[in-house]
Amino acid sequence: MSEPAPGDTLDELRAALGDRLLDDPESLAAYAVDSSRAQPEGLPIAVVRATSTGDVSTALAWAHARGIRVSVRGAGTGLSGGAVAYAGGLVVSLEAMKRIVDIDVDNRLADVEAGVITADLDAAALAHGLFFPPDPASAQWSTIGGNIATNAGGLRCVAHGVTTDVVAALEVVLADGRVMRTGARTRKNTTGYDLTSLFTGSEGTLGVITAATVRLKPVAPGQPRTFRASFDDMEDAGRAVTAIVSGPAAPEVLELIDARSVEIIEAFHPSGLPSPGAAMLVGQTVGLAALDTAEAIVAVCRAHGAVEAEISDSDSLLEARRLANPALTAQGLRVSCDVGVPVAQLATVFRGIGELAERHGRRIAVVAHAGDGNLHPTVEAGESPEESAAAELVIDDITRLALSLGGTISGEHGIGSVKRHELPWQQDAVALDVQRAIKAALDPRGILTPDRSI
Amino acid sequence: MSEPAPGDTLDELRAALGDRLLDDPESLAAYAVDSSRAQPEGLPIAVVRATSTGDVSTALAWAHARGIRVSVRGAGTGLSGGAVAYAGGLVVSLEAMKRIVDIDVDNRLADVEAGVITADLDAAALAHGLFFPPDPASAQWSTIGGNIATNAGGLRCVAHGVTTDVVAALEVVLADGRVMRTGARTRKNTTGYDLTSLFTGSEGTLGVITAATVRLKPVAPGQPRTFRASFDDMEDAGRAVTAIVSGPAAPEVLELIDARSVEIIEAFHPSGLPSPGAAMLVGQTVGLAALDTAEAIVAVCRAHGAVEAEISDSDSLLEARRLANPALTAQGLRVSCDVGVPVAQLATVFRGIGELAERHGRRIAVVAHAGDGNLHPTVEAGESPEESAAAELVIDDITRLALSLGGTISGEHGIGSVKRHELPWQQDAVALDVQRAIKAALDPRGILTPDRSI
Ligand SMILES: Cc1cc2nc3c(=O)[nH]c(=O)nc-3n(C[C@H](O)[C@H](O)[C@H](O)COP(=O)(O)OP(=O)(O)OC[C@H]3O[C@@H](n4cnc5c(N)ncnc54)[C@H](O)[C@@H]3O)c2cc1C
Ligand SMILES: Cc1cc2nc3c(=O)[nH]c(=O)nc-3n(C[C@H](O)[C@H](O)[C@H](O)COP(=O)(O)OP(=O)(O)OC[C@H]3O[C@@H](n4cnc5c(N)ncnc54)[C@H](O)[C@@H]3O)c2cc1C
Repeated sequence: MSEPAPGDTLDELRAALGDRLLDDPESLAAYAVDSSRAQPEGLPIAVVRATSTGDVSTALAWAHARGIRVSVRGAGTGLSGGAVAYAGGLVVSLEAMKRIVDIDVDNRLADVEAGVITADLDAAALAHGLFFPPDPASAQWSTIGGNIATNAGGLRCVAHGVTTDVVAALEVVLADGRVMRTGARTRKNTTGYDLTSLFTGSEGTLGVITAATVRLKPVAPGQPRTFRASFDDMEDAGRAVTAIVSGPAAPEVLELIDARSVEIIEAFHPSGLPSPGAAMLVGQTVGLAALDTAEAIVAVCRAHGAVEAEISDSDSLLEARRLANPALTAQGLRVSCDVGVPVAQLATVFRGIGELAERHGRRIAVVAHAGDGNLHPTVEAGESPEESAAAELVIDDITRLALSLGGTISGEHGIGSVKRHELPWQQDAVALDVQRAIKAALDPRGILTPDRSI
Repeated sequence: MSEPAPGDTLDELRAALGDRLLDDPESLAAYAVDSSRAQPEGLPIAVVRATSTGDVSTALAWAHARGIRVSVRGAGTGLSGGAVAYAGGLVVSLEAMKRIVDIDVDNRLADVEAGVITADLDAAALAHGLFFPPDPASAQWSTIGGNIATNAGGLRCVAHGVTTDVVAALEVVLADGRVMRTGARTRKNTTGYDLTSLFTGSEGTLGVITAATVRLKPVAPGQPRTFRASFDDMEDAGRAVTAIVSGPAAPEVLELIDARSVEIIEAFHPSGLPSPGAAMLVGQTVGLAALDTAEAIVAVCRAHGAVEAEISDSDSLLEARRLANPALTAQGLRVSCDVGVPVAQLATVFRGIGELAERHGRRIAVVAHAGDGNLHPTVEAGESPEESAAAELVIDDITRLALSLGGTISGEHGIGSVKRHELPWQQDAVALDVQRAIKAALDPRGILTPDRSI
């Protein structure tokens, strides 16, 4: 690690990295933001488009020696501001490290570089009758490294768990440029601390993930089915979800779209989607008993007040859920959140959100990974900063409501900068202290994604 | 936190804890050892039989202020020496904290104190149609805290994962006596670092777990079945396991017992167990299709060379596996290990172990959580220290063999003191450094289970 030389500039880094170092104004602006409402305080000095672990190591050692702040970036689809650049900082982008190194079919493991697109890995696995379980709605763009760094969720989580459940091993570059490996290729491994899980969800603050070994699952045999059930009462829908996940008929996907979201989706992309009185549940079942399972789930829905229900042998009934994000985005409705509650509290949280909408006099559209108790309420607001600020207050109230029910301030999007003020609402002072101590131990100069996530 | 006073003795701690502080010679000796071959260098000064989180906090603050080493103890069934006392140290025992605080049926969560016996929690859950997935063969004695601290496995892991997969939240007392909570009651939670997973498997080195929220699963409907298949060739048995876990018929239990182990079990408890040529696979299937599943698994076994097979509607065929530990122990055969390999490497590791047995001229008995690729080979040795030392060398060779196949030095028992010399065989210098940095950040005086696990 070199000492900062007097008059030192980017030249040294450029000499090492060549055209993998970008500092033209367009690149600096493009790489400065992510998909959240967080904005950078200024432009970075440069972007490293790493093509190898060595590049990442070089960049971090350079920044570490000079005390330069670094932001880490996969595809920039993050919704919490974690990948936003620092003014005068360095951006390390993994997007060019997109090699699927190996698919080990017998052990159901994939070795990938961090920049591999989620959907590309899933497609490569499918060619072997396997799949990569985490399927965030952003899978067409997001990277495996970003999924791991945010512990991403997705539609299939209710059946297969979240990203941390499928990460077996990592290659990580530490803040000072040293490279290490965590984990193992075995199903079970109890050797020292679980560094793999520690880095999963650490949002670029503890190290840069350059490669990963992830677990794949076999595609279930048979024809998948999708189902839809409409409810006139949100709380009924909540109780139906609780009953479904407690019962023997297990869905692979179980999502909720409320009436307001359906309206917005239908306006965005008219498809004759029936408008539910209050909300619809949509989902998928797989396996040889997919049809029986879907029928059993629909029966539970009817027993809990569903007024209309449908089963399909195409995946068309999930289409509306896939359109929810673009439709809400197109409306400019971006003041949303990502709270979670224990699944038996769904009816209560829906009632509470309804009460908050009335009290604040604002419409709130809700889509949810319902089977996991993970909600994304979006508060409608105008374009002005005052409107945004008012909507943020509603989000704060929804967040406190979720916490009062034993919930969490983030089910899957992470903390980044956007939710950092909420962290002490959930975590005690000692837990916050412990996280800061770990951060300081691994990044003593505080250069890696400082002041975010914890 | 008080400064050590001149002439300070145990009196202060006794004043705070009363008869929860034991220092009679019998207790000191009884609490000094665990179930491994590790021996203490001397007796501890006292044992704290905590009945509350406050007791644990008091004990640690006292030890921290004085720089006194602390060992942490659940039931002492550990096989790696992690709970062995330090000479002149303090033992903190959780065994008296055995309250099952709550079973939240709708959310399938249990809140327990750390000293709850594994089998007691499982039984309490069963009363609600639920079960606690981790089922180490020691479940009748081991504590939930010990299971979490070692990330214990068990027979059902092949279907349900290991302990870390079911821990939702923890209460932990840090080395200096501060208390914190980790995790959440939700299925998904991406808030800050995954401290829950970090403390899971940390073997008493980062904090004392005093309480936990764990996930329960619903008991599958229908009549479970057990199955057994005998092989004349170990490698065939290995290939059969690989094929089973890659196929659609998923067992809940899939264990291997080699011919030598069967012989020892039959000598210990004669039951007419048929002696296989090389090894038998035993297992269990559950769910409405349990019989079909068992038949499909047995068909895979036959296709891979099984010479004899049987299915039963009682759990009798698992009995032999349950007797393996006591039978081996009764023989005095305790030089065993706990390696893991990726499951497709099973046939290769079996061949290699056979070659090592020949090369060293020693019999090696193998039982394995085969479906997870987790093996417990036991090297036969006489009573003398020379014999033990010779057997240890064979264990070292088996461990290196597993590592050469992409395996691990511990699937489920942890590192403790017994396997510490092997850790650098698996982990790189940077990963070891990072673990030491985390340990130093959380326990700066190094009082908590020092010089073990990492
Ligand atoms: C339309 C849309 C739908 C979405 N749906 C979902 C969903 O269903 N579920 C869900 O969980 N999320 C969802 N998201 C959020 C986002 O896609 C995920 O968080 C995703 O995992 C981010 O991946 P990325 O590669 O874009 O990461 P980025 O946005 O580039 O980065 C995200 C965070 O991870 C860090 N990071 C990225 N790569 C690395 C690395 N290699 N090493 C260390 N740190 C790194 C960054 O510093 C940052 O803190 C959605 C976003 C959009 C825009
Ligand atoms: C017959 C037999 C069969 C076994 N079968 C299995 C098996 O199938 N699978 C398996 O994984 N293991 C098995 N084991 C090993 C052992 O039972 C497990 O490791 C078990 O989890 C230990 O629990 P315990 O309460 O006895 O912990 P202890 O032996 O008391 O302690 C084990 C380790 O955990 C730490 N620890 C204990 N409690 C706490 C706490 N509350 N907070 C922090 N640290 C703590 C200790 O310091 C020590 O490092 C077996 C052991 C025996 C004797």
